[in-house]
Amino acid sequence: MNFQSLIEKKRDGGTLSQHEIIQLVQGIVSGDVPDYQISAWAMAVYFQGMSEEETQHLAVAMCNSGDVMDLSGLNGIPVDKHSTGGVGDKTTLIAVPLTAAAGIPVAKMSGRGLGHTGGTIDKLESIPGFQVEKTLPEVIDQVNRIKAAVIAQMGNLVPADKRLYAIRDVTATVDSIPLIASSVMSKKLASGAQGIVLDVKVGRGAFMKDLAQAQQLARTMVAIGQGAGRRVVAVLSDMDQPLGRMVGNALEVKEAIDTLQGHGPADLEELSLVLAGHMVCLGGGADSLEEAIRKVNKLLKNGAGLESLQHMVEAQGGYLDLSRSDYGLPQAAEVLDVMSQQRGYITELNALAIGKAVMGLGAGRERLNDVIFAEVGVELHKKVGDLVTPQDRLATIYARDRSRLSQAAVEVEKAFTVSSTAPVACPLILDTIT
Amino acid sequence: MNFQSLIEKKRDGGTLSQHEIIQLVQGIVSGDVPDYQISAWAMAVYFQGMSEEETQHLAVAMCNSGDVMDLSGLNGIPVDKHSTGGVGDKTTLIAVPLTAAAGIPVAKMSGRGLGHTGGTIDKLESIPGFQVEKTLPEVIDQVNRIKAAVIAQMGNLVPADKRLYAIRDVTATVDSIPLIASSVMSKKLASGAQGIVLDVKVGRGAFMKDLAQAQQLARTMVAIGQGAGRRVVAVLSDMDQPLGRMVGNALEVKEAIDTLQGHGPADLEELSLVLAGHMVCLGGGADSLEEAIRKVNKLLKNGAGLESLQHMVEAQGGYLDLSRSDYGLPQAAEVLDVMSQQRGYITELNALAIGKAVMGLGAGRERLNDVIFAEVGVELHKKVGDLVTPQDRLATIYARDRSRLSQAAVEVEKAFTVSSTAPVACPLILDTIT
Repeated sequence: MNFQSLIEKKRDGGTLSQHEIIQLVQGIVSGDVPDYQISAWAMAVYFQGMSEEETQHLAVAMCNSGDVMDLSGLNGIPVDKHSTGGVGDKTTLIAVPLTAAAGIPVAKMSGRGLGHTGGTIDKLESIPGFQVEKTLPEVIDQVNRIKAAVIAQMGNLVPADKRLYAIRDVTATVDSIPLIASSVMSKKLASGAQGIVLDVKVGRGAFMKDLAQAQQLARTMVAIGQGAGRRVVAVLSDMDQPLGRMVGNALEVKEAIDTLQGHGPADLEELSLVLAGHMVCLGGGADSLEEAIRKVNKLLKNGAGLESLQHMVEAQGGYLDLSRSDYGLPQAAEVLDVMSQQRGYITELNALAIGKAVMGLGAGRERLNDVIFAEVGVELHKKVGDLVTPQDRLATIYARDRSRLSQAAVEVEKAFTVSSTAPVACPLILDTIT
Repeated sequence: MNFQSLIEKKRDGGTLSQHEIIQLVQGIVSGDVPDYQISAWAMAVYFQGMSEEETQHLAVAMCNSGDVMDLSGLNGIPVDKHSTGGVGDKTTLIAVPLTAAAGIPVAKMSGRGLGHTGGTIDKLESIPGFQVEKTLPEVIDQVNRIKAAVIAQMGNLVPADKRLYAIRDVTATVDSIPLIASSVMSKKLASGAQGIVLDVKVGRGAFMKDLAQAQQLARTMVAIGQGAGRRVVAVLSDMDQPLGRMVGNALEVKEAIDTLQGHGPADLEELSLVLAGHMVCLGGGADSLEEAIRKVNKLLKNGAGLESLQHMVEAQGGYLDLSRSDYGLPQAAEVLDVMSQQRGYITELNALAIGKAVMGLGAGRERLNDVIFAEVGVELHKKVGDLVTPQDRLATIYARDRSRLSQAAVEVEKAFTVSSTAPVACPLILDTIT
């Protein structure tokens, strides 16, 4: 195979055939295509894009480059959800138990956080004893018993994407919609679920900064999934400010439990119900989204969702003590309130800045091997639209040691923009693509 | 240095500063920039181009990445010429002696051929005994005595370009005017000449297929050279059909000698005189191009140019016997005439096809280590505009063995297009950029 001619074809705006894409992906996995040709091809894709068919072929070829999870042993139609990554996004911890409580099986593999966005696996590991490593038969057994499992990636999933992403990450070729879409969807296809709900985050704390781009990404991912015979829905949701009030691993688990007890923040509850509603629909548990949302809302209000979360935590070796106010989660040694200096309306609360401040506290990783701290993070007492006066608490910083408190406090205060005019309310859910 | 941010800047259409370009080039030489970042950057340049200043900075930084020839020991203003590569282009063998005969010093480093275009060094090595390896003091001594030396590249010239070109060559990033221009000019600047005449070939046997592109390349190269304080002129010349009648190493030396004896083909003589005229002008040997051309034409007609070539051949250990009809050059064992099958005018004579046929005979290299044969090649008896009748000789094939004769004959015959209408005459020199 002459890979240079494939680069040239793409450089000149051509469309690679399915055969060529398969050769390329096999060459990426085998090592036959050297790094410098992969990066040149990725840069050519950055400029020339890929056709819908080409993107589909790439996602499927990458999916087939490694292990593909066989979930046929599950009872029911297994569903999955995926978030493109945000700040304070703990919807998986709420939507998965609600979906399971509705009787729809969820065997979900999640990622660890990297950069300013958190990872569900890191959050779950803040629960004492929680095990994220499971074999496929163990997962199938657990889901058939209690309908839910959230584990770390297992097996040799999508090795082509691992190599391709590592190269894109250092060659300024990450920001390409067909490459992002095929990377995400190759993993979702390999994970084996029949129904996939995508939560595409839009805004300054998200990878996609504007709605039009996010819509294009969502449409591309939905087309890939549907082209591969899966049921796929994409929800586009706001990530200009963090979701909910808690950012940090154990803090987010606490907020998820609060929400499943009926007293979570409105935005988090709303998005979790919508995502769970879509999951229930795709899993065949309702005839319409409205019916599905009514169903999961009832399961939230009657405590069935919380019970489902507890079952999953127990099944995976974790321990939560809901009789205690801290639920038995790790607590930060140092706590500091950030007070408002001004009077006015909060018009902006920069999700990226909060995400970075929380990473600075040690909740996230800059590199894959960094150690993270479960108990650190930020609690937001005020959000966009709230009126503040001097000495109102804006946020609380939870830190491991004093040295990091003040730096985080400065960053968190800067993340708030206060103005004399109230901001125009922005919807949480911006679009839905089916 | 964060090289990824430089790729990103170029990807987004930005302009790298001189400092950034120097860092990049130093990183290319030291190995700090990995191959995959070099290729991604080159592909971004392919799409976004480079500003004139940026291209200038790149050429100068690459020039300074290795040895720079110090020609200050030469008497007079040293001049150089460079061809972008063609088929049958032996102008160096004529223009350099003519320039030297006019008293202008030429200390020229030439390349070996690769692909379908020949290399001056290969042609010179077909002269029995000719030595192309010389030290810088030897070159300076020779040029101060006899005004001319043509040698193979010496020293560690432009190592940045060596690595960059090797990567571009396999990542579909060769066809970028700023990268071609800075590659060529970095070498010319490092070669130390004060005056540089560029022969930019245009047409199907050349790297640049159309005039507009060739003009852009020429303007870019002239701007780089002038920006670095050199005197530079670019001549754009036709390379749709081969130059002259001989293609092949020893055959081209023979044709150069014929031309210096006053009976060479008109196109070869014309271009050689123009190039030598520019060289003499840049070297300060005439006040106008017209005067310079008159001067070198006289030196051709009175045999001074031929004498100058003989001095250079002798000084470099070579032996030519001008009393013999073959000048003592190696002769091919097998010879075959290609006859015309049709009656009509030759409207096309594909330079690329002739170049490939000659390479197939063993005159050129596909890879750097291929052995080449001095005596093989093609002599063209008819060129564009000539009228032919069946059984006229179109060409003669000179081969090492019979097995390659027939294949070459088929290819050479196919390179001719015969039509009942005479073609419109096309000028040999298409433009001059100063």
